Amino acid sequence: MILVNGKSEDRINITDRGLQYGDGLFETIAFRNGVAEFIDAHIQRLLAGCDRLKIPFLQLDLLHQELESVYQRCNGSACIIKIVITRGSGGRGYLADSSTVPTRIISTHAMPNYPESYSNKGVSVRFCQHKLSENTVLAGLKHLNRLDNVLARNEWTDTAIAEGLMFDQSNHLIEGTMSNVFIVKSQQLLTPLLNKSGVAGIMRAQIIQLANQLGLNVTESILTQDDVASADEVFVCNSVNGIWPIIAVTDIASTYITGPITQQLQDALSKVEK
Amino acid sequence: MILVNGKSEDRINITDRGLQYGDGLFETIAFRNGVAEFIDAHIQRLLAGCDRLKIPFLQLDLLHQELESVYQRCNGSACIIKIVITRGSGGRGYLADSSTVPTRIISTHAMPNYPESYSNKGVSVRFCQHKLSENTVLAGLKHLNRLDNVLARNEWTDTAIAEGLMFDQSNHLIEGTMSNVFIVKSQQLLTPLLNKSGVAGIMRAQIIQLANQLGLNVTESILTQDDVASADEVFVCNSVNGIWPIIAVTDIASTYITGPITQQLQDALSKVEK
Repeated sequence: MILVNGKSEDRINITDRGLQYGDGLFETIAFRNGVAEFIDAHIQRLLAGCDRLKIPFLQLDLLHQELESVYQRCNGSACIIKIVITRGSGGRGYLADSSTVPTRIISTHAMPNYPESYSNKGVSVRFCQHKLSENTVLAGLKHLNRLDNVLARNEWTDTAIAEGLMFDQSNHLIEGTMSNVFIVKSQQLLTPLLNKSGVAGIMRAQIIQLANQLGLNVTESILTQDDVASADEVFVCNSVNGIWPIIAVTDIASTYITGPITQQLQDALSKVEK
Repeated sequence: MILVNGKSEDRINITDRGLQYGDGLFETIAFRNGVAEFIDAHIQRLLAGCDRLKIPFLQLDLLHQELESVYQRCNGSACIIKIVITRGSGGRGYLADSSTVPTRIISTHAMPNYPESYSNKGVSVRFCQHKLSENTVLAGLKHLNRLDNVLARNEWTDTAIAEGLMFDQSNHLIEGTMSNVFIVKSQQLLTPLLNKSGVAGIMRAQIIQLANQLGLNVTESILTQDDVASADEVFVCNSVNGIWPIIAVTDIASTYITGPITQQLQDALSKVEK
């Protein structure tokens, strides 16, 4: 199912700035048990992104209506709902026209069929060679300029490797290709500081909040490959898959257990109202 | 006129990775006097970009045929020809499918109607606040991840300012929002090193070649705002507009003359077979 500006439609005009320049943002939402999980947080991030990119998105009521109609048509079946907002069509080259109206695209996709063991037993990951771009203004946003993630994710096809960890230009750990990453070290939770690169994930924010509620301290830090190697526990997370404990990093021959703090967070997450 | 994979068509599927991730490249070519200027250099850069992004673009013969049909339909009228190549539709998230076929989009656009004085007398420019992303792998490429240029170009609407100069995260001068930049200092031509940011323009390469033929030394350097302020001559260039001498930078109240080296290069460029 695809809606473009509220209409059943699977194509957009090639003049759309989303295609021409990656001039837009997106959200990927898990729809399960009739609920679009963490939808308020997703919409809030989308609006914050529009604000940062100065995309004059004034169609929030329409977007909500369209989402409601998508939920109904899903009829209780689990799926992924992807929202893309672009600046729209028009303008003269990079200069947007003040009359340009943003484009809304809502599409549904099958839930990925990852094995349950990814959550229960954990996953093997690798270090990606491709490094993330650095930009303090774009950092944190889920914008459409995603060549870094594409290049990193296409470094491997071995299905035994579930995710790749990415580093920035200074070799600081930032995130997974489609996830955020946390490490546990001496009972402390650490996650990369995202002030220059990376996407500030909705699940990442949820986990930080949950950890605080559990009395666990979370520090956003500059982390390196060595911090991963010497960690007690490592996990990745995103809105669709929740928490995947990491049990092995192939490049450094490190192995981990699915430790107590990761399990505690998984338990707490399963009880959160989404 | 728009051709998508050779067919008259003004829309593409929303699943195209060009829209979803900015997963592609583009070229902007001036078509004048029945000639697609520097077309070989543009095609060569496009192929080099596909190679760097590992886009398996095997449809070069088709692209050439489609370009020929566009030239004929232009029927001698000047226009801009834009070529976009995306990785195509498909794959699972960031991971592309090995069977994905790249999308070819060729579109024609009106020549911009900049005043002749921009070339003859020069232009006023400004310094952009938005800084370019840094990434050694993406540097130089004309890829579709162009949020930086969009944000920088939308900082001003005053038509008296023809271009904005952009800096990287370390405040090194890189380029204009739609151009490359050169400065002349003590008879030496200098242009920013593009190993971390920026687009390596076709006109930039032409000018370096021309300068060498004229016995002028060109150095690719790390340059700053101070180098612009203390320059004898400054100019920007691109494939469509050729060379625009800079006569003023509003932010530093600097003014310049359209100096002898800029004029020498403009003269030489006017005689080059394009």
